[in-house]
Amino acid sequence: MSEHPENFEPADTVLDPRRITKILAAVADRDAGLLNDNLEGLHPADIADFLEQVSDGDRDAFLELWSGEDAGEVLSELDEGLREEVIGQLDPAALSEGVRDLETDDVVDLVEDLEDHQKEAILDALEDSDRFAVEQSLAFPEDSAGRLMQRNAVTAPEDWTVGQMIDHLRDSTDLPEQFYHVTLLDPRMCPVGNVTLGRLLSSSRATLLKDITEEVFIPIPVTETGEDVAYAFNQYHLISAPVVDEAGRIVGVITIDDAMIVLDEENEEDLLLLAGVSGETSLSDTVAETVRARLPWLAVNLLTAIIASLVISQFEDALTQVVALAVLMPIVASMGGNAGTQSLTVAVRALATRDLTGSNVTRVIRREALAGLANGVFFAVVMGLIGGLWFSSLTIGLVLGVAMIINLLVAGLSGILIPIALEKLDFDPALASGTFVTTVTDVVGFFAFLGLASYVLL
Amino acid sequence: MSEHPENFEPADTVLDPRRITKILAAVADRDAGLLNDNLEGLHPADIADFLEQVSDGDRDAFLELWSGEDAGEVLSELDEGLREEVIGQLDPAALSEGVRDLETDDVVDLVEDLEDHQKEAILDALEDSDRFAVEQSLAFPEDSAGRLMQRNAVTAPEDWTVGQMIDHLRDSTDLPEQFYHVTLLDPRMCPVGNVTLGRLLSSSRATLLKDITEEVFIPIPVTETGEDVAYAFNQYHLISAPVVDEAGRIVGVITIDDAMIVLDEENEEDLLLLAGVSGETSLSDTVAETVRARLPWLAVNLLTAIIASLVISQFEDALTQVVALAVLMPIVASMGGNAGTQSLTVAVRALATRDLTGSNVTRVIRREALAGLANGVFFAVVMGLIGGLWFSSLTIGLVLGVAMIINLLVAGLSGILIPIALEKLDFDPALASGTFVTTVTDVVGFFAFLGLASYVLL
Repeated sequence: MSEHPENFEPADTVLDPRRITKILAAVADRDAGLLNDNLEGLHPADIADFLEQVSDGDRDAFLELWSGEDAGEVLSELDEGLREEVIGQLDPAALSEGVRDLETDDVVDLVEDLEDHQKEAILDALEDSDRFAVEQSLAFPEDSAGRLMQRNAVTAPEDWTVGQMIDHLRDSTDLPEQFYHVTLLDPRMCPVGNVTLGRLLSSSRATLLKDITEEVFIPIPVTETGEDVAYAFNQYHLISAPVVDEAGRIVGVITIDDAMIVLDEENEEDLLLLAGVSGETSLSDTVAETVRARLPWLAVNLLTAIIASLVISQFEDALTQVVALAVLMPIVASMGGNAGTQSLTVAVRALATRDLTGSNVTRVIRREALAGLANGVFFAVVMGLIGGLWFSSLTIGLVLGVAMIINLLVAGLSGILIPIALEKLDFDPALASGTFVTTVTDVVGFFAFLGLASYVLL
Repeated sequence: MSEHPENFEPADTVLDPRRITKILAAVADRDAGLLNDNLEGLHPADIADFLEQVSDGDRDAFLELWSGEDAGEVLSELDEGLREEVIGQLDPAALSEGVRDLETDDVVDLVEDLEDHQKEAILDALEDSDRFAVEQSLAFPEDSAGRLMQRNAVTAPEDWTVGQMIDHLRDSTDLPEQFYHVTLLDPRMCPVGNVTLGRLLSSSRATLLKDITEEVFIPIPVTETGEDVAYAFNQYHLISAPVVDEAGRIVGVITIDDAMIVLDEENEEDLLLLAGVSGETSLSDTVAETVRARLPWLAVNLLTAIIASLVISQFEDALTQVVALAVLMPIVASMGGNAGTQSLTVAVRALATRDLTGSNVTRVIRREALAGLANGVFFAVVMGLIGGLWFSSLTIGLVLGVAMIINLLVAGLSGILIPIALEKLDFDPALASGTFVTTVTDVVGFFAFLGLASYVLL
């Protein structure tokens, strides 16, 4: 084991606090040699994380000293928010060399959000064939399969044998760094099947490729959205899939590592949107960027809060006469908001994973309503007792209980119906659902509780 | 194109509403032949989705008629909540045949949560070697690399050549369905490097395997958690990685498709936990299961709501004298709750992706505090004006503004500090963070607003 420490102590190759301290020390001493020694063996993704985590000052100092080795990989791993800044500080030579090492799909991802002059500088660094491939990908709509795909697909005529293919691969000089299938093409360049490299390696040279193709074969239209691509890879456990134009001709290939990144980003976006944070945020954002990402949603929430207050203000008489109402009313609203958020989140996730469909939507709606009702009854009893005893008033307990049932039923229903409605209207169901739902539960909660109370008590 | 419709119309091979209707019709007619025709070409994952989406009655009728083809695949794609039920209704012969087709890692995933008698029935169906492999995996802790891994790794002595390896693969009869690397082992069976099949295929027969190993090589300790495995695959773009015991000897291999599933599940768990839904829920849950998954969290929220009400009740005098306070107080609390949820969600995500570390935590905390303060000042002005004009009282406007600043600052801080604290205490930061944060913002919001008001107005 001691002979291969690098194998069994990932800590040595990853970015642990010890490593960060050593790197920062080298940066502080302005010691380029020591710095680059300390970067030895670090994965570009970890160097990117380092750049995202350190202060602006340390980042600038680092970039002055850094050899720029793997600069391309590091940039494509880096937060989009930081790329322009880092590119601007990189030595142009290191930058050009770095981007030439990248696969074309990584170059596309790297340049698509850059300002034109930086984009140009990077495209100029590429060989003509790669530049052409990148520009073709950039011609496809943002967040489409065309942007995700690697142009350099490994293909073979459908009538080739294993032997022919292996010989061909041995002679090829320009194979992609990673590939998992040989895609069989008919004479019109349309993919007709995938052969895994494993099958290729374990079959006799005389075997026809078309006889060992994979059962699951799903070519991806070049205009398909990244979300749909990620879904297909996750649902059908694809490792790579050919990308085809509207005529069904192959234009590239997408591999699972890219699909995994998209899936992760989609999940992150839903998580943040549900919390009212615009999906574009990152930890390296400045205070100003952070405020900008959150203030709009708080503004929307302010409006909904004011609506709730307007409802409350309709019952000033009741509130002045029975102060208990002011004390208890937030409970009804808060319980409704939480119950609504629960069913909302389940619905948004189910829509994202396509588990909520025409065939079960009515049953799920019914379930949410019943679950809301059941929770409502339970908490009506509990809170009715507490409230009744607290203010030694049976009426208050009853009013509280009934309002609780109404609001939790409404919460369950709005939690499922609002995201479904947004989806139908082609909005992202995660977007603003939360605000709608809590507005409903606040308004209904206050109205039901205070309305009932003034009706019964005054 | 028409020659290969299956290639370019995934709709034909996926589960669209048209397909579902046809299947349900066949089920309604109790027509087994027609049913199994309609299932033709459907991916097991889609059949599983179908079973999850239809009503219990349709599912039972379907299972009576179903040929049980691909039963193993379908089961391993199925919601854990439904597996026992479906297994119970399957024809034992189809079940045994189905599980024999599965890779051992899928069998492990399938049986780990089953009741003993069903687990036994499935293990009995396996060949001895597979059964042994499955039982060894089951001996590792739940949610560990040992449970995720496929036992059947493709390996070679470190001194082999490409030619030797290819000949060996051609002669092998028991290769895994999917494999992407040949893992080189030293004489002590410790992995020392990975060779991608692409490199193997494109190198001359005389090439030594050890000369074409991949740069990034990260063996995974068998006890590592699924979350750490998913992180490693996502961070370092691994396709497959050898799993090693404490002595560094190979015990299996994990492939990216399994890591992708874990990553997706971890994301889903965080999303649901943040909303106060226990991670185990699924759309096929009954009303009772749904209530059970959500009631506990609502109960916790009820406690926090009562605490908030206790705070309010301290200011009954003020509330009875100035009804405006009852009308406006929910606004302060609601804005705080939303701002807190925003920074909380960003923090939870950053902890999950390991972007929030010792090297940037102080800066991020500072940022959240400043962003909260900035938003606080903005909404203090806006809401101070609105409140002041609404009740034509400068004092109320001022009190509202100051309370807003205090609460949004506290919201930003608690949103970042609470998840960090939970993580330090080895709790899942997504767990209960939301409740803690909103409790803080409710209490602080009501206390600051009503406290200030009674101090100034009475």
